[in-house]
Amino acid sequence: MDAPKHNTGRTAALGIADADAPFPGRRVVLGGDKPLRLDCGVELRDFPCAYQTYGQLNEAASNAILVCHALTGDQFVAEAHPMTGKQGWWEQMVGPGKTLDTNRYFVLCVNILGGCMGTVGPQETNPGTGKIWGLDFPVITIADMVRAQAMLLDHLGIDQLFAVTGGSLGGMQALEWAASYPERVFAAIPIATAANHTAQNIAFHEVGRQAIMADPDWCGGDYQSHGKRPHRGLAVARMAAHVTYLSEPALHRKFGRRLQDRDRVAFGFDADFQVESYLRHQGTTFVERFDANSYLYITRAMDYFDLAQSHGGVLANAFVRTPVRFCVISFTSDWLYPTPESRKIVHALNAVAANVSFAEIVSDNGHDSFLLDEFEFRNVLGGFLTGAAEHRGLTINGAPARP
Amino acid sequence: MDAPKHNTGRTAALGIADADAPFPGRRVVLGGDKPLRLDCGVELRDFPCAYQTYGQLNEAASNAILVCHALTGDQFVAEAHPMTGKQGWWEQMVGPGKTLDTNRYFVLCVNILGGCMGTVGPQETNPGTGKIWGLDFPVITIADMVRAQAMLLDHLGIDQLFAVTGGSLGGMQALEWAASYPERVFAAIPIATAANHTAQNIAFHEVGRQAIMADPDWCGGDYQSHGKRPHRGLAVARMAAHVTYLSEPALHRKFGRRLQDRDRVAFGFDADFQVESYLRHQGTTFVERFDANSYLYITRAMDYFDLAQSHGGVLANAFVRTPVRFCVISFTSDWLYPTPESRKIVHALNAVAANVSFAEIVSDNGHDSFLLDEFEFRNVLGGFLTGAAEHRGLTINGAPARP
Repeated sequence: MDAPKHNTGRTAALGIADADAPFPGRRVVLGGDKPLRLDCGVELRDFPCAYQTYGQLNEAASNAILVCHALTGDQFVAEAHPMTGKQGWWEQMVGPGKTLDTNRYFVLCVNILGGCMGTVGPQETNPGTGKIWGLDFPVITIADMVRAQAMLLDHLGIDQLFAVTGGSLGGMQALEWAASYPERVFAAIPIATAANHTAQNIAFHEVGRQAIMADPDWCGGDYQSHGKRPHRGLAVARMAAHVTYLSEPALHRKFGRRLQDRDRVAFGFDADFQVESYLRHQGTTFVERFDANSYLYITRAMDYFDLAQSHGGVLANAFVRTPVRFCVISFTSDWLYPTPESRKIVHALNAVAANVSFAEIVSDNGHDSFLLDEFEFRNVLGGFLTGAAEHRGLTINGAPARP
Repeated sequence: MDAPKHNTGRTAALGIADADAPFPGRRVVLGGDKPLRLDCGVELRDFPCAYQTYGQLNEAASNAILVCHALTGDQFVAEAHPMTGKQGWWEQMVGPGKTLDTNRYFVLCVNILGGCMGTVGPQETNPGTGKIWGLDFPVITIADMVRAQAMLLDHLGIDQLFAVTGGSLGGMQALEWAASYPERVFAAIPIATAANHTAQNIAFHEVGRQAIMADPDWCGGDYQSHGKRPHRGLAVARMAAHVTYLSEPALHRKFGRRLQDRDRVAFGFDADFQVESYLRHQGTTFVERFDANSYLYITRAMDYFDLAQSHGGVLANAFVRTPVRFCVISFTSDWLYPTPESRKIVHALNAVAANVSFAEIVSDNGHDSFLLDEFEFRNVLGGFLTGAAEHRGLTINGAPARP
């Protein structure tokens, strides 16, 4: 199952429950010898784990960068999405000669536990019952996601990551990696993230969950066996979340109060304003590629994340004697995980004398800045990686990493 | 119909369509002689308008303060709500000896056009068809709301308001009053508001509208004739909006990451966190007292509001040669209508040499600060009113307004 089977059919998320359908990417079954023990106490055995890779793993297996995807992301980092055909979500950052240079690094991205792009999650089949997991799927945590990724690294023969990075939920995974497996991470770059969810973060996620669960087509979580999908509720959840991903200045610049295909307001409830039309589009396109129960499970994992609480209430304890080199990056206009959340991480790392750089990037693009090709961001990320590669003594085909 | 008929039956919003039910408050029929001509071109005739009053109108009819309510507010400013039994939404501010002292002032609050507490709106009966208006109700604007209020003042024999005030949508009405009827307003106090909705404001409202319209029980807006109510969608809309009414520090102080009646997370989708439980409560209690279509119409009116656009694109033009005395009030932690929105109003007023005071109140309670008993806020509002009363030469029973 490990061999790449690329196709462009729309079989991934929404048809993946059919084990006979060809899977559009790489996938392995993990937990055969030793199960994945989850924080909730449940053990997962023989679970699928989907991932994509870019570039070549060097002989020492020392040039792997794990890119962790965000809530609605997936493993198709630097290639067309097999369902939507859209370009990879970090394609401007990952590739030959790019910031995450696949001529130097082996870039790996794993669909997260609980996701809906091939890794086990609520829309997959429970091998114990032969039925779709649905809400019987155990509630997972970010530490569980990272444990599953560590099992994949074992499978791939990678003892230590050269770097782990990601934005938002991806950044939480990077932090969890550094905390849980410090000896397996040379460098960590958490971006636009936080060491725990605030009450406001939880509140916005709860609105999304309630929107999904309010949709009668959710069927108490059992929509798949009823042949339904809670598209309306999931679209509302996506719209509510999407507003939090953008800054007010970015919304003003993109849309302001401009009208959609009309000269004056229509005195009705169609999309008069461009921003309404944009949001509706975000909602309707999202439901074509994402699973509603996955949305519940992943938002729950993010709400549960609290790296201080899981280390005796003191965030610094998560990083005592850490050998990991950190580069923490935030964006000025990110109001979902604003810079003070990154500063808390930096302060905790400073408190244990960790090796940490911190950059706050000036951008008006809000939380989504990490997905965009921001010049200063790219320079910080690329510069840190190159410096870390030198410290690691990373060679590419026998030559030093620096070109 | 003008005589007050107080009762405490739960007949107001949800039973008001039955014209024979006793109405729990004051209500008149307006537009008999001359219709209300709306911005959309429709004319409303013989429409009900519900209001409440506190204190006595003086002989000169010069001591009236119009309090304009916000999106989900109503006319029960300083008395128990007839449906919920909860205290009036500004009861700490309005009453004998209070900031809006009903021993001095005649305080008036009108259920807004499009509302659901007795004034004509989508859940009332269309006299032309004998059926519930539903989505046949014309889309209204804030200028329309103010025109209806002006008709009520005519009915009550009040030529000029001593003051008009309100927070949020109430502040928009106060601004519209000053712009549309400068000769009928002595002083205007717009609080926690803006002269137009930003793209982000529109986006949040659109999420709420989409949540309502996604509920199958909305029935294309015709839920009343189907004997249904889109409670689930309306609750989600309320939850999404409610997050924007509070600041992150207030949410942190009130709830933080504290759990609800449990020692550890339950690894499920019940309300683990207090903030989830609080939000759910906000949603479920709201739908008992509010109409979903009203929510659509009122949010639409707010999105349409653009005082500059309706005055040739220049906000100052709305106030040229205004005789009105203004006091503009904002709150430091209000991120829905942040202080820069109030500054724009102040700058426009300065540009036409209007008489304007501006106060930014330090508070961490977010947008909802205007509903709370904030010491500095109360002092600013009370002080401005007392000073304005002196300038107006306002006498109470023959004595000057200042005690």
